[in-house]
Amino acid sequence: MRLLITAGPTREYIDDVRYVSNASSGRMGYAIAEAALAAGWDVVLVSGPVDLAPPIGCEFHSVVTTDQMRDACLQLFPGCDGVIAAAAVSDYRPLQRITGKLSKTGGPITIEMIETDDVLAKLGHIKENRWVVGFALEAQNPRENALQKLRRKNCDWIVLNGPAAIGADTNDVELLAPSGDSVAHWTGTKRDIAADLIAWLARET
Amino acid sequence: MRLLITAGPTREYIDDVRYVSNASSGRMGYAIAEAALAAGWDVVLVSGPVDLAPPIGCEFHSVVTTDQMRDACLQLFPGCDGVIAAAAVSDYRPLQRITGKLSKTGGPITIEMIETDDVLAKLGHIKENRWVVGFALEAQNPRENALQKLRRKNCDWIVLNGPAAIGADTNDVELLAPSGDSVAHWTGTKRDIAADLIAWLARET
Repeated sequence: MRLLITAGPTREYIDDVRYVSNASSGRMGYAIAEAALAAGWDVVLVSGPVDLAPPIGCEFHSVVTTDQMRDACLQLFPGCDGVIAAAAVSDYRPLQRITGKLSKTGGPITIEMIETDDVLAKLGHIKENRWVVGFALEAQNPRENALQKLRRKNCDWIVLNGPAAIGADTNDVELLAPSGDSVAHWTGTKRDIAADLIAWLARET
Repeated sequence: MRLLITAGPTREYIDDVRYVSNASSGRMGYAIAEAALAAGWDVVLVSGPVDLAPPIGCEFHSVVTTDQMRDACLQLFPGCDGVIAAAAVSDYRPLQRITGKLSKTGGPITIEMIETDDVLAKLGHIKENRWVVGFALEAQNPRENALQKLRRKNCDWIVLNGPAAIGADTNDVELLAPSGDSVAHWTGTKRDIAADLIAWLARET
């Protein structure tokens, strides 16, 4: 089994200093990489900027922006059997990146943001015989929104978690199938949940 | 000597997940804290979110937003002899923070940003007999902009560095005085520069 994993946040720069991002620590994705390596799988890890060392034994690709993560994943996915997309990509980016550092003027500024490409949907739509596990971080109507994402992005399963997961050591997740069924519910440290997810995929894929 | 130090970035949230920030690692400010502790000074460290352990022996205050950093500093500065403001605060914040997580619609979004309070200027204007060292990170017209900041914010000295400093292990800085003179120029690791700065302040203050 050769597994592609995405992890961490991405950053979208407003100017050369300021960016839009989120507090994703990369811990969920890195824990999944470690669990998959421990299970004897080949692991390809594409990671946004985090303060974690890449697990020993994985093929590691470092990216900053969502477009860079998309490009890396589209290139690497065809060589893998499946993907677990644990990254919390920035799904908006400033329409323009200002060169240098925007100087304060005393007045307000307006930043136009456009949606970035949907990396998970792109992988879902080119998957052919590969499997795709997405992550959905939902604040409102979590199951409904997660299922919509699963279907729109052509995932095989989606891991549903809430905003409390961001940057935390522990998590509480449900694994949803396209039927709408909750096929697993795991709580514990991100390491525990990663091991549960890999064991589950080893049985089901 | 009792020294207040600010370090790291601050974050300004767009919604419960997304924020505006910068890649400041906190290394410069934490290195200054360590150098000051090593010189036998009392150190009060006010830090934004970073992946560094607070130096042993300092009084540590953790903050997230620029307003929180301002409040902590205004409370702590009167009990100190001076401040070194190494934090890279976010000087803009979204006018409104959205509760929950903004959902994608397919269309662009516009974010109104307003300037945050200027923490360094506030400290400069209440300093009385205390000294104030600011940091200026300048991309264009660096000396001119840094000197304008020094004067407008009522600093005693300002450390001028460039965007390459952000998140790096090394730095290349000039120390500017209100006269416009460059009174020191240090290059090396942030630890080296921190030791140089503390030795310089021990002589000059």
